[in-house]
Amino acid sequence: MFAIVNVEECELRSPRERYREQVRDEVKAHAWRQVATTGATALSLNAIAKQMGVSGPALYRYFASRDELITALILDAYRDLSTAGQAAAAAAKTPAAQLAAIALAIREWALAEPHRYLLIYGTPVPGYVAPTEATTLAASLMALLLDAFADIPSTPGSKSATALEKHLATHRDWAGNEHAGDSALHRALAFWTRVHGVLSLELAGHFVGMAFDPALLYAAEVDAAITE
Amino acid sequence: MFAIVNVEECELRSPRERYREQVRDEVKAHAWRQVATTGATALSLNAIAKQMGVSGPALYRYFASRDELITALILDAYRDLSTAGQAAAAAAKTPAAQLAAIALAIREWALAEPHRYLLIYGTPVPGYVAPTEATTLAASLMALLLDAFADIPSTPGSKSATALEKHLATHRDWAGNEHAGDSALHRALAFWTRVHGVLSLELAGHFVGMAFDPALLYAAEVDAAITE
Repeated sequence: MFAIVNVEECELRSPRERYREQVRDEVKAHAWRQVATTGATALSLNAIAKQMGVSGPALYRYFASRDELITALILDAYRDLSTAGQAAAAAAKTPAAQLAAIALAIREWALAEPHRYLLIYGTPVPGYVAPTEATTLAASLMALLLDAFADIPSTPGSKSATALEKHLATHRDWAGNEHAGDSALHRALAFWTRVHGVLSLELAGHFVGMAFDPALLYAAEVDAAITE
Repeated sequence: MFAIVNVEECELRSPRERYREQVRDEVKAHAWRQVATTGATALSLNAIAKQMGVSGPALYRYFASRDELITALILDAYRDLSTAGQAAAAAAKTPAAQLAAIALAIREWALAEPHRYLLIYGTPVPGYVAPTEATTLAASLMALLLDAFADIPSTPGSKSATALEKHLATHRDWAGNEHAGDSALHRALAFWTRVHGVLSLELAGHFVGMAFDPALLYAAEVDAAITE
């Protein structure tokens, strides 16, 4: 039985299908270089075809449009980031340690290839609409945060924190997790926005002229987001 | 004496100079529309020349390059945001009320024209380097935050907060303000990154599918950034 499943999963891909996957990977590698050097908005299938020494129409058999190519890049990036977050969480023992590890993994991932982080979380590509699958992958990262915060006791918040949590009590479809209270939802959202706030300003170069170490600001923000 | 100063400031601009300013304003208006619809990376002086019914070379007399045009847009945006922040702070009475008013003014300004906010704080335009003047304008906004936090007593922070503040004690050239202690520097940075974290994810559409009200998350984050 297992053998049959293996055969179905790995062997039944025809040489043609495997070749198709190889070409798509090659196109995506060229596309990432374009995103890094000229930006996602300027992404051009024709330019990639030229670099690969094939005709434009030949390439359109692998990606029907610029938007289909951007979607493939965004989904790859989300999957990779989500995997990094899951691996970090799995290696940590307490919920607080899991959150700290996830935050560190996200920063490492973002600094290694800033254009991947910015393609997901930076300025939207004009005219491009992200597919539902991207939302599902983003939700898998959020689920990690919710699981951890659900197991960390909450402290009483300010008037505006209470107002937000009361609102989230009836606006929590996105959370999925029944186990996480309204305060956990609030803290997971704040964790996400605080991590993103420091990271995106760092990646966009806003701290360069200020000459302090962004890693220390990040650590302080992550700590505060976990314990407050 | 006053008459002479007035003449120097207002009247001595020749018709030619005033016409030049008008054309530059017209070019910038076209450029903002391009930034909003196709993104800053795709900004094209030739496309604007075509829209204005003039030749490319004619337009290059007003902006020598794409980068000079982007710089003009960025400086206008920074000036406008800085003015909005200053007006908000001036109308509030206590330091805490000033910070709350600045945060609201920033959000209002950003939501009114998201592409202006994203041109300053979003994904950097590949190959473009912002001028020193942009840093000066950014510093004027930071100065508002530092002034306010200098007058709000600090509460003892975590180990990582203490480590950051110890580091900022010797990395504070960017702050200028001698009156602001290391904790005020820390809190001003955290205020900036928290405001930006919520706002930039909202502008990029990351909360749309989640269907909660970002204004409430923003209010809770701003409150926490002022009082914690």
